[in-house]
Amino acid sequence: MRKRKKPWLLSELNNSSKLIENPEELKGHWHEFFGNNNPIYLEVGCGKGQFSIKSSADKDDINFIAFDKELQVIGTAVKKCRLFEEENNTKLSMAFVIGDVTNLLSYFDQGEITRLYINFCDPWRDREKWKKRRLTHRNFLALYKKLLGDEAQIFFKTDNTPLFQFSLNEFLEDNWVLRNVALDLHNTPYHLDGHNIMTEYEEKFSSKGMNIYRLEAYQKVPENK
Amino acid sequence: MRKRKKPWLLSELNNSSKLIENPEELKGHWHEFFGNNNPIYLEVGCGKGQFSIKSSADKDDINFIAFDKELQVIGTAVKKCRLFEEENNTKLSMAFVIGDVTNLLSYFDQGEITRLYINFCDPWRDREKWKKRRLTHRNFLALYKKLLGDEAQIFFKTDNTPLFQFSLNEFLEDNWVLRNVALDLHNTPYHLDGHNIMTEYEEKFSSKGMNIYRLEAYQKVPENK
Repeated sequence: MRKRKKPWLLSELNNSSKLIENPEELKGHWHEFFGNNNPIYLEVGCGKGQFSIKSSADKDDINFIAFDKELQVIGTAVKKCRLFEEENNTKLSMAFVIGDVTNLLSYFDQGEITRLYINFCDPWRDREKWKKRRLTHRNFLALYKKLLGDEAQIFFKTDNTPLFQFSLNEFLEDNWVLRNVALDLHNTPYHLDGHNIMTEYEEKFSSKGMNIYRLEAYQKVPENK
Repeated sequence: MRKRKKPWLLSELNNSSKLIENPEELKGHWHEFFGNNNPIYLEVGCGKGQFSIKSSADKDDINFIAFDKELQVIGTAVKKCRLFEEENNTKLSMAFVIGDVTNLLSYFDQGEITRLYINFCDPWRDREKWKKRRLTHRNFLALYKKLLGDEAQIFFKTDNTPLFQFSLNEFLEDNWVLRNVALDLHNTPYHLDGHNIMTEYEEKFSSKGMNIYRLEAYQKVPENK
C-alpha cells in the first residue's frame, strides 16, 4: 500500500526554524546555532519525535537534536514539537535533522555531541547477513566513538531480545563501560534520571506487556554510577 | 513435611574416595590430591551434580570440584558420579566438597582454582534486604577475586530475570570484563565450548520454555573472545 501523502508536510517543514536541511554547514557551529554552550544530545532514528521533545522539555540545560533519515517522520516530529510549544507556551532548544547515520561525521565535529540516544532501532531480525545494518554493530560503535570522543555516552533501548543480546556483546567486545543494564526497564530502578521518557513505540508495546531493555555505554567509567 | 532419610546416604559417602570432609586440610595441596597439574574448576551450589559430572566427562584435562552446603545433595551427587563411572567404565577427576561459600578462602589458596561456575543459585527474589545473600552480590565477587586471583573466570547461569539483571550490574560495577552474554542461551551461539552442559534444574525448566541467561566474567580481557 502506498503511503498517503501528508498535505501539511511541506509547509510545516518550510516554516520551521528548527529544521536543518544542510547539517554539513553547521559542522563545528552547532553551539552557535543553539546560542549557548550547553551539551548537545542526539537521538538517531527519532521517529515521530516524542522522546526528544519530552526529553528537551524535561532538561532545559540540554540542546536536543532529533535525527532521522525519513522526511515524512521528521515532518511529523517537527509538527509535534510546534504543537507542544504552542500548548505549553514554551520554546524548546531543539533541532531536527534529516540525514543518514553513516554520514554523522560530516555533520558534527568530534565531541560536539555529548550523548547519543538509540531507541528501538530496526533489529534486522533473522537476517544474519544484514547484522552490519544494526545501529549497534561494532562498525557503528567505531563511528560513534569518532563522533563522541573520549567522553562518549550512548543510551540504548529496545524491546527486541536478540538485538539486545547482540548489542550487549558488541559493546562489551568493543570495550565500552556498561552501566545500569535493565532487562525489564519498566519494573526496575535503573533510570538514570529517576524516570523514563518513553518513545511512541515504547508506549505502545510496553502497554501490551512486552518488556523493555536498556543500557548505558561509556568510554570512561562514569562518576557516581 | 519431613525429608525422608536416604538409607544409602552414609554408606555412599563413607565409601567415596572423592568426598572431601575437611577441605581446609587440602588448602594449597589440591593438585597433589588430583595427582596432576591440570586446571581446577569449581562449581558452587552443585546440587545433584549433573553439570560437574558431565563437564568432567567432557574435559578430561580439567579437575572438577562439585561444592555444596547440603550433605543430602552432595550424597546424591557422589552416588550419581559413581553410577556414571560404572556405566561408562571410566574414572572422573573429581572431588565433592561439603562447605560454605563464605569459607572458600579457608579451603583454597589464591589461584588454586582457575574457574568458578555459579549455576542457578537462589535468587532471593523480592527480598531487597536479603540481596547480600545472592552469590553474585559484590561482596561475593570480592571474595571470588581473592580466591581466583588475576586470572579469575566466573561462568554464571540462571533462569531468573531479576537475578540476572542484578548480577550483570554487580559484575559491571565491580569492573569485571564480560563476554558471551546470553539472554536466551538455548537459542544462541554463545556457548564457549560449542555446546551447553545442562544442570538438572536447567533441563527441567528450559523444557517448559523458560529461557536461560548466561554470562562469562573475567578479570582480564580473555584471548579470542
